[in-house]
Amino acid sequence: MRNQNDTPIANTGIVTLVGAGPGDPDLLTLKAVKAIQQAHVVLYDRLVDARVLEFANVDATLIETGKRAGQPGWSQHAINTAMVTHARDGKRVVRLKSGDPLIFGRADEEMDALDAAGIAFSIVPGITSAVAAATDAKVSLTRRGRNSSVRFITGHDTKGYAEQDWRGLSAPGATFAVYMGIKAVRFLQGRLLIHGAERDTPVTITQNISRPAQRRIDTTIGEMSEDMRAAQVSGPAVILVGLKARTAHTQDIEEFEYAETVFASNHLR
Amino acid sequence: MRNQNDTPIANTGIVTLVGAGPGDPDLLTLKAVKAIQQAHVVLYDRLVDARVLEFANVDATLIETGKRAGQPGWSQHAINTAMVTHARDGKRVVRLKSGDPLIFGRADEEMDALDAAGIAFSIVPGITSAVAAATDAKVSLTRRGRNSSVRFITGHDTKGYAEQDWRGLSAPGATFAVYMGIKAVRFLQGRLLIHGAERDTPVTITQNISRPAQRRIDTTIGEMSEDMRAAQVSGPAVILVGLKARTAHTQDIEEFEYAETVFASNHLR
Repeated sequence: MRNQNDTPIANTGIVTLVGAGPGDPDLLTLKAVKAIQQAHVVLYDRLVDARVLEFANVDATLIETGKRAGQPGWSQHAINTAMVTHARDGKRVVRLKSGDPLIFGRADEEMDALDAAGIAFSIVPGITSAVAAATDAKVSLTRRGRNSSVRFITGHDTKGYAEQDWRGLSAPGATFAVYMGIKAVRFLQGRLLIHGAERDTPVTITQNISRPAQRRIDTTIGEMSEDMRAAQVSGPAVILVGLKARTAHTQDIEEFEYAETVFASNHLR
Repeated sequence: MRNQNDTPIANTGIVTLVGAGPGDPDLLTLKAVKAIQQAHVVLYDRLVDARVLEFANVDATLIETGKRAGQPGWSQHAINTAMVTHARDGKRVVRLKSGDPLIFGRADEEMDALDAAGIAFSIVPGITSAVAAATDAKVSLTRRGRNSSVRFITGHDTKGYAEQDWRGLSAPGATFAVYMGIKAVRFLQGRLLIHGAERDTPVTITQNISRPAQRRIDTTIGEMSEDMRAAQVSGPAVILVGLKARTAHTQDIEEFEYAETVFASNHLR
């Protein structure tokens, strides 16, 4: 890289926005693993699974940006400043986000800051939680003759509970995933029923997807609020509406355990 | 696994439906790589990138199921039969699909067949092309204050061009990705304009995402049909509507080339 005087700018680092996926480190892409392994600095969100961080080099600086135990998290401005500062210091910075950076990940705000500061960056995608939840439920997000579209919506936006195209979402056959919907579940249920959704539309709520504490609640629009309260769901979860989890087949086995071959982390700590 | 007489069923294999991602083998998940490496039989779609197949064991049987050079592809029934037959023969079968198996991948039909045959199966997700296209364009699929939902739709269904919620898709701020939309582009453009979409709504068409032949066309709803014809787009492509690709920053560099560390395929052929 050269500046306008054609002098090499030797000391400028780069930033890679990396999707950490839902939790299971085996759901990282190879590209994500390489980026984490070669980072000097890793700025990670609270929801990133600790096992993902084990890929980092032992000499890397790991910095958590999220809230923990009631303490406030970093502001977006503070995260932006940290990325820019470390990159200007010549570091390879990984900004690690749970799921995919471009789906409800607020990556635009970070990319804008990097552009404004003249810091080069790239993006590595990740498995987003709606896809991981469908994988666990063994049900397609789309199906020929059933639904030719699928939506990802958020339960919350800057104004509180997010208003959506409730009429479309309540129509027969509508299929969608709700991110950040746990606190909004009663609102969501009310809006869907008011707009004519069938009470027995299947709903699958998956908490802590691909993590040891994963739990799935198979319910319906009519029962989702009560069932979720009864199950005391908290923490990260995604709600699939219009999709019924496949009944476990009687011959179904525990997921096949692939042997660890060349991919075991060599940086266990 | 045991049958009803509690006798071990030693010879039954398993099937793993694996997402191969959009092309670049670095976009495979670790779990996908492990599944491919340990498969005895790999049944792969035509669109799966050849580099992905290099992870297979040299002794594995690789079988293409898709169309090539005008020859008809396998029927769904033939694919189902092959999966079941090899699994019953005790093999670890990988059914490899481009993108993610559960997004426009017709996986339900295959899962139904496996359930009916009593074959155990699992699923490994992949990076779907809409996400890969957004990654290349460096633009979030969702953005606070802009769009709190995103849709994935198909341009074709069993009845031909797929009818959709055109009114919702034509509304200001609507953001969606169209799969299999290349042949349907004039239909798509017409439907959106009839329903009031702004002609200058940004459109990003990405062909051969993450492959050496990747090409991106930045256009608008008003110009998409002409621009695509002029560019002679054919082959796999995804259309992002409502998202404007980020202008390359002047200091932007070629994507950082991570060194190959422990992840190089050891089965080059």
